[in-house]
Parts: sequence; structure tokens; C-alpha cells
Amino acid sequence: MFAIPVRIYYEDTDAGGIVYYANYLRFLERARTEFVRNLGYEQSQDLLQQDPFGFAVKHVDIDYKSPAQLDDLLKVTCQAKEISGASMDIFQQIWRGETLLVEANVKVVCLNLNKKRPIRIPQKLLEKLKETL
Amino acid sequence: MFAIPVRIYYEDTDAGGIVYYANYLRFLERARTEFVRNLGYEQSQDLLQQDPFGFAVKHVDIDYKSPAQLDDLLKVTCQAKEISGASMDIFQQIWRGETLLVEANVKVVCLNLNKKRPIRIPQKLLEKLKETL
Amino acid sequence: MFAIPVRIYYEDTDAGGIVYYANYLRFLERARTEFVRNLGYEQSQDLLQQDPFGFAVKHVDIDYKSPAQLDDLLKVTCQAKEISGASMDIFQQIWRGETLLVEANVKVVCLNLNKKRPIRIPQKLLEKLKETL
Amino acid sequence: MFAIPVRIYYEDTDAGGIVYYANYLRFLERARTEFVRNLGYEQSQDLLQQDPFGFAVKHVDIDYKSPAQLDDLLKVTCQAKEISGASMDIFQQIWRGETLLVEANVKVVCLNLNKKRPIRIPQKLLEKLKETL
Repeated sequence: MFAIPVRIYYEDTDAGGIVYYANYLRFLERARTEFVRNLGYEQSQDLLQQDPFGFAVKHVDIDYKSPAQLDDLLKVTCQAKEISGASMDIFQQIWRGETLLVEANVKVVCLNLNKKRPIRIPQKLLEKLKETL
Repeated sequence: MFAIPVRIYYEDTDAGGIVYYANYLRFLERARTEFVRNLGYEQSQDLLQQDPFGFAVKHVDIDYKSPAQLDDLLKVTCQAKEISGASMDIFQQIWRGETLLVEANVKVVCLNLNKKRPIRIPQKLLEKLKETL
Repeated sequence: MFAIPVRIYYEDTDAGGIVYYANYLRFLERARTEFVRNLGYEQSQDLLQQDPFGFAVKHVDIDYKSPAQLDDLLKVTCQAKEISGASMDIFQQIWRGETLLVEANVKVVCLNLNKKRPIRIPQKLLEKLKETL
Repeated sequence: MFAIPVRIYYEDTDAGGIVYYANYLRFLERARTEFVRNLGYEQSQDLLQQDPFGFAVKHVDIDYKSPAQLDDLLKVTCQAKEISGASMDIFQQIWRGETLLVEANVKVVCLNLNKKRPIRIPQKLLEKLKETL
């Protein structure tokens, strides 16, 4: 399964001494970005189009099983589960060694950023995404 | 229903021109903090105990219906739905005027921060929380 | 002097138990945003122009005198010191009660966001800014 | 000179389409953390001491020369310039290829985190830091 390493820095933690809960969503998004970059795709190029588009998150179901802490080196996975014309369901996990810390199901939708309206995922990317299923 | 205002600043947005998806969880947490502060309760006091404790998030189910943008003035609600000895289910919404942008169900658990283990919600706070149901 | 209140939440703190140093820059920016909003000016409108522009920070000199902590209610000030055609020097302080926590000198420049190039501050805003000197 | 790579993700950018100015301080801190980790030193261990300590930033002078953007791969340097018993002056730069984007001078001080008071840098770390001068 596709995965990236993520190191925990002071910026990620809070006064409770553990990683702040919203920050795991940053790590999940980094993994999704590297997942599509790994398919030869740079999201920043989409922003330069006349009609800029991007993937917007529609739904997240995230389960926090065990907290990460300062200096932890985590592994963040990304696996596409279902892909329709404009949206994609993604399954993601965050591990510290053999310990599963976080599990998430994320639905993203391809969005025309000017009109804030869903559009079809570009055909070339769509095909590459489907090959990962 | 308990609610707080949240203004959107540059820090909250991303290059897509809308609020970055993880940042709504920051807004939700602000509302939960003000909700318990409104019950006469300061979380920072818990960190000064010999056995410091705090509320950790166990689960979030969040639905992004429509994006917020720079300068938006939002309303973030917080309503406890079910309270057990150590955990609490909370229903939260984020509104811009009459438009519902985000809806979330959040489960938090009271945690001994040294041992990273669940403990009972302090009795006095528990009673006040139950009065809001 | 113009000032806004800022409450410290978990999101602002780190595992050291104090506010993470980069986050004071978020508070400073909120105060600058409210400072210009108070002059009848909404930054988000600038992003909708054919040639969108905004204020970019060129230089920050920031002195951390004493740390802020969870639940603190701070006061963040904003005072323009010198205004030229395209740039502005701003003096800012962050207070907790009578204790000065942070002091900063910030230089911002008006930027054409497509060309990433400095442009003159719009005349109407420039006049209002000069009245605050 | 010691340096780390930093990739720019959506989380780092803002609605102006460039990296939000406070976020460069996160990147600088990551480089400082890896700089001391590279000396065989883990900051998280300090938080487990009976008297936890850490490096707190006292002063930052940062010059923003050119903005970074989504997907950029940056190089963030870290060079100690002067080390006294309790504090350290550090020079840092952020590069995109041959283009210097950001330059900063950072003063950190070793802090007893319970008493929020400066203490001497632990002797063993102090020696290793001086060897990098």
C-alpha cells in the first residue's frame, strides 16, 4: 500500500503533550498529495488553469485509537477504494511501528475552484487512479 | 443551542481559495472549549493537577457541505448528545448565515495525560454537562 | 491604539505547554486584518479582482518576552508607523493584562498576486491608513 | 551547512496562493530540531525529566525575499552562530533551487518548562553544539 513517513515536530503537538487532533488531517492530506504525485501528477498545475480545479474533501470519518507524540516517526498510508466520475473514496491509516494510531475514510470530490462546483476528474488522472484499485 | 462566532483569516485558507479542511476541526474545538468554559470550567487548570487530564478526541465524523472563505463570519454550535462516565458524544454545526457549511459528530474521552488512559469525567463537570442535555 | 482580543486554545499550544512561537504571527495577522477591516476594507474583495492583490509580509522582527499559555486572553495591538506607496511599517504588541508578552515590527508590501510583484496600495485605502498615523 | 528538505502542501498555503508567512517559522523549527537530532539528541526526552526543559525562541528576525508556492521542494538550512550558557544564535535560510526565499536570525534559550525560567544548556549537548561552530 502507498505510504509516506511523517515526523512529529513541536508544531504538531499541543499542551496535552500529544498531537493535536486536527493535525492528523494534515498528515492524511500529505499522503494523498504524494499518492497522486506518485502517479505523475502535480496539483499546483491545476491552479494555473484558466478554470482552476482541485480536490476538496467532502467527508471524513476518522478514528483516533492511540495518540502520537513529539519526535514520533509515523507511516501514513493511502489507498483508493472507489472512484466515480467526480469523486473518490480513500482509506488511510497512520502507524507508529506496529501500532495503529489512526484510521480514516475520506471522500474527496474534484471541484472547479472558481465556481465551487464538482467537475469530472481529468480523464488521464482518472485512468491512473483506477489502476491503483 | 450553544454557539460561538468564528472569523476566517488568511491563516485558515489555502491556495484553493477556501478554508483548509483540517481547520474546521480547530473551530469545532474552540466551540467545545467555550461550551465547557461557559459551564464555569477552565481546561488549563486540569494541566496543573498532579495527574493532569484533558479531553482527547476519539472519533470525528465530519461532512463538508459547502466551503467557507476568507473574511467569512461563521457560527459554530456545540450540543452534547450523550454522556457516559468517561466519554461524551457531541453534535456540532458550522453556519454562514442561513447556509449550513459543516456538520460533525465528535466523540471525546476524558484522558489521564500522563498515563494516556481514560478516566471518569470529574463529577462536578459531569453534572453540569448533563444539565445541558 | 487599535487592538483585538485573542483567546488561546489547544490548537495554539505545543508539548512545551506554551504557545508555539509561529502562532503569535497568526495573532499579529488577525490584528492587522481587523485594523484594515475597521477602516472599511475587506481583503477578500481584492482576491476577486481581475488582477488580485494582497498584503504580503516582507520582514518581521519579533521579540518573545514571556510565553502565553492555554486559556489566556490576550490583547493584540496594531499601529502603522510609516507608509510609502507600496509598503507599510507596523508596530505590534501582545499583552496579557499588564504583562507585555511579545513585541514585533512588521513590514508589509502590497503585492499583485498573479505576478508576485509589488504594486501601489489602492489610493482610497492609502488615505485611510495615513489618517491612523 | 546542515539542511533539510521541506515539501510545500496545501496546509502551508493561503488564499493568496503563496505560503502563509507564519508557516516558514514551522519549517525553520523543523530544521533546528533535525539539527540537534543529528547531534544524537531527542527533544522529547527532555519533556520526560522531572524538571522538563526545552528550547524556547526569544527573538526572530526574518526577511521574506520571495514567496514559496504549492508543491515547491525547499531546502532549509541551520547554522549555529554563537552559543552561551543558556542561549544560542542561529542563522537559517530557505532556498528553492538557486533562489533564496527567506533568511532568518533566531535566538533560542534553554528553558525550564515548569518554572518558565532560563537554565544552562545540558553540558553534553552544549559541547556538541560548539563543535558545529
